Amino acid sequence: MANPIDFYFDFSSPYGYLASTRIDEIAARHGRSVVWRPILLGAVFKITGQQPLTTIPLKGSYAKHDLARAGRLFGVPFKMPTRFPIGATAPSRAFYWVRDRDPALAVPLAQALFRAYFAEDRDISNPEVTTNVAAKIGVSREELAQALNDAAVKERLKTEVDAAVERGVFGSPYIIIDNEPFWGADRLDQVEKWLETGGW
Amino acid sequence: MANPIDFYFDFSSPYGYLASTRIDEIAARHGRSVVWRPILLGAVFKITGQQPLTTIPLKGSYAKHDLARAGRLFGVPFKMPTRFPIGATAPSRAFYWVRDRDPALAVPLAQALFRAYFAEDRDISNPEVTTNVAAKIGVSREELAQALNDAAVKERLKTEVDAAVERGVFGSPYIIIDNEPFWGADRLDQVEKWLETGGW
Repeated sequence: MANPIDFYFDFSSPYGYLASTRIDEIAARHGRSVVWRPILLGAVFKITGQQPLTTIPLKGSYAKHDLARAGRLFGVPFKMPTRFPIGATAPSRAFYWVRDRDPALAVPLAQALFRAYFAEDRDISNPEVTTNVAAKIGVSREELAQALNDAAVKERLKTEVDAAVERGVFGSPYIIIDNEPFWGADRLDQVEKWLETGGW
Repeated sequence: MANPIDFYFDFSSPYGYLASTRIDEIAARHGRSVVWRPILLGAVFKITGQQPLTTIPLKGSYAKHDLARAGRLFGVPFKMPTRFPIGATAPSRAFYWVRDRDPALAVPLAQALFRAYFAEDRDISNPEVTTNVAAKIGVSREELAQALNDAAVKERLKTEVDAAVERGVFGSPYIIIDNEPFWGADRLDQVEKWLETGGW
């Protein structure tokens, strides 16, 4: 069995959302599974000195245009959220907590959270919104609400983010195939080609 | 006749070089011509507060890896220049001066300059190197050397850069099809699709 693909993303990243709608099917076409790994880009931006794309002069307004256009091209609902960017602590903690208890629910939860934020303009940085989204797919609202403030759950996310930074992950989406890194939703065609050919 | 496509680039931009190897054939497939428009990104970076990609922590080393990989994918010679980035004043002035006098030589000159810098590691920011490259394709070395210090030629480039900034150009390559902007060599597939479909 070939190694799974690592799919790093920030729940606040619109290009991460776009990639999330395709990564599993791309991997599956080549007999690979995908490990979804939400991270917090805020920690990374401190190292790279970068700012959220949409806040940069000129680049920011282009990015909004590019995202709307890419959303149509991907054929997925996309609306720039009213509040952007957000700190994705709550949804990310929820993801790892759910995955540790019920792995089959983890990706559906991530997809539902991404959709809530980028298609329905719901502020998933609000723990209540995150627990509502999770409850819809069968996660216990009460247990999750409690878990979001649990020290071990906080530590779990921190460990994941630290490991990602250690590995050189600096953006979202960031996809690693057998140690080969690809940054950006616009690298999905290269990801597919790499899987198909084994590299070039 | 459909409008020509505007192809903005900085001679110091490796992704600009990659795009330059394909833009004319992509446009030609859809009955379009291309206006090549060298600019100086330094002026733009002052506005956007950005730095050259390769100098940014984490992102920089990824960029070098990505460029080498993209060069192989594009099937063109590519070697990260020893001196990078450079101020592309000399090659850019040369380009506009040549285009104003002999339009047919302009694109071959741009291609030769890009190749000199990104395939042969020659520092085209040095006016002597630029004039040597130009001489090889039939431009008068003496006249060009003189032109590079001519006030009108300097002003010509400045006007082009100012107009690009005015139009919102902030990166390289930056391609505009009938007012629709595409930033990055990784948007060439969307450029092609836009030409094919008229937009989506």
